[in-house]
Amino acid sequence: MDAGGHPFYRFCRTALEDIRRQGRYRQFTPLARQADNYPLYDQADPVVQPPEGREVVVWSANDYLGMGVDPAVAEAAIAAIRAHGAGAGGTRNIAGTSPLHAELEAELASLHGKEAGLLFVSGYVSNQASLQTILTSMPGWICFSDRQNHASMIAGIKGARGSSCVIFEHNDLADLEAKLAAAPKDAPKLVAFESVYSMDGDISDIAATCALARKYGAMTYLDEVHAVGLYGAQGGGVSERDGVADQVDIIEGTLAKGFGVHGGYVTGSVELIDYLRCAASGFIFTTSLPPSVVAAALASVRLVRKDGWRREKMFERVEAFRARLRAAGVPFMQTPSHIVPIPVGDADRCTEISRRLLSEYGLYATPINYPTVPRGTERLRLTPGPFHTDAMMDEMVAALATLLDVSVNRKVHAAA
Amino acid sequence: MDAGGHPFYRFCRTALEDIRRQGRYRQFTPLARQADNYPLYDQADPVVQPPEGREVVVWSANDYLGMGVDPAVAEAAIAAIRAHGAGAGGTRNIAGTSPLHAELEAELASLHGKEAGLLFVSGYVSNQASLQTILTSMPGWICFSDRQNHASMIAGIKGARGSSCVIFEHNDLADLEAKLAAAPKDAPKLVAFESVYSMDGDISDIAATCALARKYGAMTYLDEVHAVGLYGAQGGGVSERDGVADQVDIIEGTLAKGFGVHGGYVTGSVELIDYLRCAASGFIFTTSLPPSVVAAALASVRLVRKDGWRREKMFERVEAFRARLRAAGVPFMQTPSHIVPIPVGDADRCTEISRRLLSEYGLYATPINYPTVPRGTERLRLTPGPFHTDAMMDEMVAALATLLDVSVNRKVHAAA
Repeated sequence: MDAGGHPFYRFCRTALEDIRRQGRYRQFTPLARQADNYPLYDQADPVVQPPEGREVVVWSANDYLGMGVDPAVAEAAIAAIRAHGAGAGGTRNIAGTSPLHAELEAELASLHGKEAGLLFVSGYVSNQASLQTILTSMPGWICFSDRQNHASMIAGIKGARGSSCVIFEHNDLADLEAKLAAAPKDAPKLVAFESVYSMDGDISDIAATCALARKYGAMTYLDEVHAVGLYGAQGGGVSERDGVADQVDIIEGTLAKGFGVHGGYVTGSVELIDYLRCAASGFIFTTSLPPSVVAAALASVRLVRKDGWRREKMFERVEAFRARLRAAGVPFMQTPSHIVPIPVGDADRCTEISRRLLSEYGLYATPINYPTVPRGTERLRLTPGPFHTDAMMDEMVAALATLLDVSVNRKVHAAA
Repeated sequence: MDAGGHPFYRFCRTALEDIRRQGRYRQFTPLARQADNYPLYDQADPVVQPPEGREVVVWSANDYLGMGVDPAVAEAAIAAIRAHGAGAGGTRNIAGTSPLHAELEAELASLHGKEAGLLFVSGYVSNQASLQTILTSMPGWICFSDRQNHASMIAGIKGARGSSCVIFEHNDLADLEAKLAAAPKDAPKLVAFESVYSMDGDISDIAATCALARKYGAMTYLDEVHAVGLYGAQGGGVSERDGVADQVDIIEGTLAKGFGVHGGYVTGSVELIDYLRCAASGFIFTTSLPPSVVAAALASVRLVRKDGWRREKMFERVEAFRARLRAAGVPFMQTPSHIVPIPVGDADRCTEISRRLLSEYGLYATPINYPTVPRGTERLRLTPGPFHTDAMMDEMVAALATLLDVSVNRKVHAAA
């Protein structure tokens, strides 16, 4: 429909040319997960093919514990489809609230030691809708937002017209305190931050951040998306591990990463959650999660709370992988989390190494380019999990050593 | 966590008291759909119980054709769970693009006669992310938005900082033309509207709206959420029925209503969709739809395109229901669509009638109050479908006649 010659079509062509020139054109690799062989995938890309007959070992998935392929989780989803069908059939208010929804919300509240929980169709929407709703509720809100907060938090904060946003330097408590101290005393304040930052893999000091917030009368909003299921005795995230969940006002999480299914949520006090339930447009005006997704998530959360072995195994595998990288001289960012970024530093090279990993070795690691990370810090982002074997690790380390030309660059050491 | 006494907690309590006083406190009715007995549901509300042993007949679901309980759709979902697990395991870029995603996007593009399609986690997100991304792409965009556009479109339009929005009166082409004519000639323009407006059930004149847009050099964005699956020879919506899909730049739809599953999408030209794919934050930074949801939606769209009987049966049932309402003197809004609103006009009374339908008759019809509709126009919203039998209709009409006290109010006629 370019007949009218609307300038937007021209704009799109030019913008896409720019994106291609910058090496950040988004080419998705079609990968079909094998439920009974995680982390093996079948690859269906007509362009970039793995070596003849090779299945692909995926090293970048966010289903960190493989809960999405746990038989109990799959069977819970299947039972719910057989019982209730494939979709919810309406918004929460229009016949779309099954008893499973309420049960999962109670389970998540209990996971984080909060009074109440609220489901959203995704973690992105839970952040965007909750932050925007809170920050437009009263006049004069000031949101103190970590510079590296996720795009979904930024969308909610920016979308909250009438409120203002003060960005503090990443994980910099002195900067946060200076900015809290400089703000008007009587303005309602919110400190929004994450526990595990997923691209650099660093972890915030939740206790200290909450103490500062308390000192200056601010509420706290914590995104535990890359931590739930993985940290804490029951997988309640870093706030559980550090014993500080009760000091956080709102804990947000996802069902799509550590829990391996789909959807997002927030937890907090009864009145706060009830207000979001009654006021958040992104919660109200949308079809609720399918009962099968909710049933699978419920099964997953319960398993993850009960069994610690997946978490322990994941961290053991992460250390085993780092040891191999170190021994081979492959540079990586040493992080206090489960995430292993391999710095590359150039979008084209990053994409090219990912392509060669796939086509020459049957290994998949996502290239992470701008705008997900700043230009010049392009990287492969690896997430070893409980199902990555020693043999898979040896294979990946050898491939990286070759493709990154480690023999020539032995002097390149792990970045901070 | 009220210890700090943050004013937001007080605000929530006060706001919730106001909401309750206005009769618009949101109380969700827990309803478990019976996959093999649609539209029968089991009710699990500890407070409002249907008569002893009664299952609930749901009259308000948005799974208009019952596709969510179609055995072929359910089996497609189950097969995908067995093959690929319960979740996608990543964003589209991070190992979350299965071949199924691309297949469904191609199918939806073909349904609407467009070059390309793009999946989102919900219809809400497809509207919000697409409109916001388009309207922030070039400087000076003016969006002409129908006064009754859905909350998700408004969220996208309002979220597009730097663009301006001109609201035209609902389905009022003269007003739209006056406003298009008054706008600066060289500003990029977009007309955003729906085909079926879901609360009043009226339908826009797509051909005339597109002709006006063309005359003034504007692009068109059409929300077919309440029309896809239901209108047109293959369920391509009102734009297909009217033979004007090729005149619309962007057609947006959902997989969660007529198609009975979950998720949303847009379709349009290759470069436009490719630009959204590379630029829309709400598309990029979120876990992709689970393969099982995509497989179920694909099965559903293919069935709905091929078989017209469900659509025909739905419209026959809608007419049969209207005839019964008319005969019994129950007021209803006569609409050109499949939606049958029963006006009540007061939030408390609307909620009370819905409650009594459930507790005294085992019938469920959602009360629609502010902010979904303007105050004073509160209503029950009924959506008869292919599975509502004559006996179910007689029961609902008799119950409505009693609860609306039709014998006393015979003079109350159907509103426009």
